[in-house]
Amino acid sequence: MSIRCKAAVAWAAGEALVIEEVELSPPQPLEIRIKVVCTSLCRSDLTAWLSQAQPQIFPRIFGHEASGIVESVGEGVTEFELGDHVLTLFTGECMRCRPCALGKTNICHTLGLERQGLMHSDKKTRFSLKGKPVYHYCAVSSFSEYTVVHSGCAVKISPVAPLDKICLLSCGVAAVTSISRCSTPEQVAQGAKLRGASRIIGIDTNPEKSERAKAFGVTDFLNPNDHDQPIQQVISGITDGGADYAFECVGDTGMITAALQSCCAGWGLTVTLGVPKEKPDISAHYGLFLSGRTLTGSLFGGWKPKSDLPSLVDMYLKKEIEIDSYITHNLMFEDINEAFQLMREGKCLRCVIHMPK
Amino acid sequence: MSIRCKAAVAWAAGEALVIEEVELSPPQPLEIRIKVVCTSLCRSDLTAWLSQAQPQIFPRIFGHEASGIVESVGEGVTEFELGDHVLTLFTGECMRCRPCALGKTNICHTLGLERQGLMHSDKKTRFSLKGKPVYHYCAVSSFSEYTVVHSGCAVKISPVAPLDKICLLSCGVAAVTSISRCSTPEQVAQGAKLRGASRIIGIDTNPEKSERAKAFGVTDFLNPNDHDQPIQQVISGITDGGADYAFECVGDTGMITAALQSCCAGWGLTVTLGVPKEKPDISAHYGLFLSGRTLTGSLFGGWKPKSDLPSLVDMYLKKEIEIDSYITHNLMFEDINEAFQLMREGKCLRCVIHMPK
Repeated sequence: MSIRCKAAVAWAAGEALVIEEVELSPPQPLEIRIKVVCTSLCRSDLTAWLSQAQPQIFPRIFGHEASGIVESVGEGVTEFELGDHVLTLFTGECMRCRPCALGKTNICHTLGLERQGLMHSDKKTRFSLKGKPVYHYCAVSSFSEYTVVHSGCAVKISPVAPLDKICLLSCGVAAVTSISRCSTPEQVAQGAKLRGASRIIGIDTNPEKSERAKAFGVTDFLNPNDHDQPIQQVISGITDGGADYAFECVGDTGMITAALQSCCAGWGLTVTLGVPKEKPDISAHYGLFLSGRTLTGSLFGGWKPKSDLPSLVDMYLKKEIEIDSYITHNLMFEDINEAFQLMREGKCLRCVIHMPK
Repeated sequence: MSIRCKAAVAWAAGEALVIEEVELSPPQPLEIRIKVVCTSLCRSDLTAWLSQAQPQIFPRIFGHEASGIVESVGEGVTEFELGDHVLTLFTGECMRCRPCALGKTNICHTLGLERQGLMHSDKKTRFSLKGKPVYHYCAVSSFSEYTVVHSGCAVKISPVAPLDKICLLSCGVAAVTSISRCSTPEQVAQGAKLRGASRIIGIDTNPEKSERAKAFGVTDFLNPNDHDQPIQQVISGITDGGADYAFECVGDTGMITAALQSCCAGWGLTVTLGVPKEKPDISAHYGLFLSGRTLTGSLFGGWKPKSDLPSLVDMYLKKEIEIDSYITHNLMFEDINEAFQLMREGKCLRCVIHMPK
C-alpha cells in the first residue's frame, strides 16, 4: 500500500528544499520500506544539489546517510522483518554479481552507485507528487520520513546502537578506520593517525580548519594562500621529495593532479575520494606514473557495506572507533536547509537531521 | 686523456644518423669510460630521435641498452677496474639518496632518467665535435665505440656472459620476469605467461603481430581495426566487465585511457610502460578511479638496476630466463640506420648492433 509522508524536495539545482507531502509506493520485490530516524548531510548531497548537470532529474529527494526502522518488506525479502534497525547504503551488495561473488571489491555491478535518480531494479521512482515522479538520490533518498530501498542497499544492525549517532556509519564511517568517498580532511587525518602516520599534512584554503584539523591528528596545516609556490612544491620541499600518500577529499580534479605531484617518486600513492563537481576528467603528465607514482580511488573506503558495517557498529559500541566528535550539529527535519548552508560555508563536519518521531 | 672514436651522431630529429669521429673526454670523478661491445636499439631511442620537442639538444648520440668493457676509471671509482665487463644503465643507483637508502624503489633521485642530454654530475657533455658539444641520451649514449657513464649508471657482470646477448638485459630485460619501460607487447605477454595468467589479450593494429604474439603467450589477439566498437568495449565484453590488468606498451596517452577503461571496476590495474611521443598528459574520468581502478607506471620493471641485474645475468646463464628469441636482427655499427628503419616499420623485436672489434 502506498503511504503519504513528508519529504524535503529539491525542485531545482541549488534551490532551497521544500518540505512537501509526497506519495511513496510500497516496496517492490526484494525492496524494503524504512521509517527514517536520523539522516546526516554528506558533502556529496551538497555537490549533487548544486550541480547543474542533470536538470531533468528534478524534483528530487536527496540524502543517503541514514538510520531507520523497517516498516514493510516487498516480495521475496527474507533478510529483514518489520522493526529491524537498519542503515541505508548508497552502494549496495547484491551478493550475486561477479564482483560480489569474488569478494575482491565493494563495487557491486548490480547495486552500485545509482546516478539517474531511479531505483536499480525497474528504473522507476517510488516517490511521486501529484502523480508526477520525484527522483531519488543514490537509490536511497533519506531526506524523507519514509523511503524505499533495495534490500541489498540496507544492512541490519544491532538494535541497541544509537540511531542518532550511527547514521554516520552509513557513509562517512570508513574514514575512521580506512578512507572514504565522503571523507573530510579530518576523517582522513583520524584514519592516518590510527594507522600510525608520523606526519600528517592537512591542506585547506580555509584558515578556520587549522585548529580542528590538529585535533584530528594533523601535524602540519598548510594554507595554499599563504605560499607563493604551488602547494605541491611546498609539500615536496618539506617532505624531502614528496609525501608517501596523498588523499584528495574535496572532489576537484585539479587538486587530484596537485596531490599526485605532491607524492614522491617511486612509491607515492594518491587516493581520490571526492566526487568532482565540474571538469570530471583528471589530467596528469605520464612521467608522474612512469616514475613510480600510483593513482587510485576509493568508494566507501573499500568496505563491503553489508558484510562489514555490522562489525563497525559493534566496534563503535565497544568504543573502538569514534563517531560522536564528527557531529557538530543536530537539527530538526524542518531546519534541513540550515544544514546545507552550514556545509556550504564549511562550518560543520556532520549535521545530524532528526526526523519527526 | 681524451680519445677520438666513431659515433653515430643524430644531427637533427628524425634525420639519418651519421658516423662521425668525435672527441670523448676522460671520465670525470666517479665516472668510467667504456668500450662498447654491443648495443641494441630500443623503442625509446626511436621515440626520442623522432621527437621535435628538444631541438636544442642536437647533435646527439642515442643508445642506452649496451654491454661493454671498462677502458678507464675516474677519480674515486673503486667499484670498477680496467677490463671489467659491464652493462650500462639508463636509470642508475647512487646508493646514497633517500630512495636508494630506503630501498623501496628503483627511482634514484641523483641518477634517475636524464632528459637534458647532459651528464648528471656537472650538466655538461663528454662528447664534442670540432669543439662543440654533442649531447647524450639518458646519460649513456652507447651508439659510439666508447662512452663515459657515471659509475652508478653501470653494473659489473660475469665475464663469461655473452655480451652480444645480455646487452638486452641493460633495459628490455625486466619484461622477461616483470614488466619494463621498454616492453613490447611480446615481452609483457611472456611476463604474464610466466606469472600464470590464463588469458592474455594482445592488441595491435598491425595484423602481422598476431602470430608472433601467440608464440609469446598471447591467447587472444585483437586488432582494433576489425571492430566497430572502441576496443575497450570489446575487451569489456569478452572479459565479463573488464580485464584484471592492462599494460600500455606503445607510449600513447590516449591508449593509456583506453587501457584504464578496459580494466574492471574494483581491482583493475593499468600499468603504463611506454614513453609517449606527443600529448604527454594522460586524461581519464575520475569515476574510473572512484570505482576502484588503479593507474601506475613502471620504469625498468621496478628492478633496481645495479642491485638486481647481476642475478638476472646469472639467471640467463642458467637458462632460467630467455633472451635470445627477442633478437630478430644482428647488424654492424655502420648499418645502424637500418635498425631504426626496421623498428619504425614494426619489423623487429630487438636489433643488436655490433661495434667494430
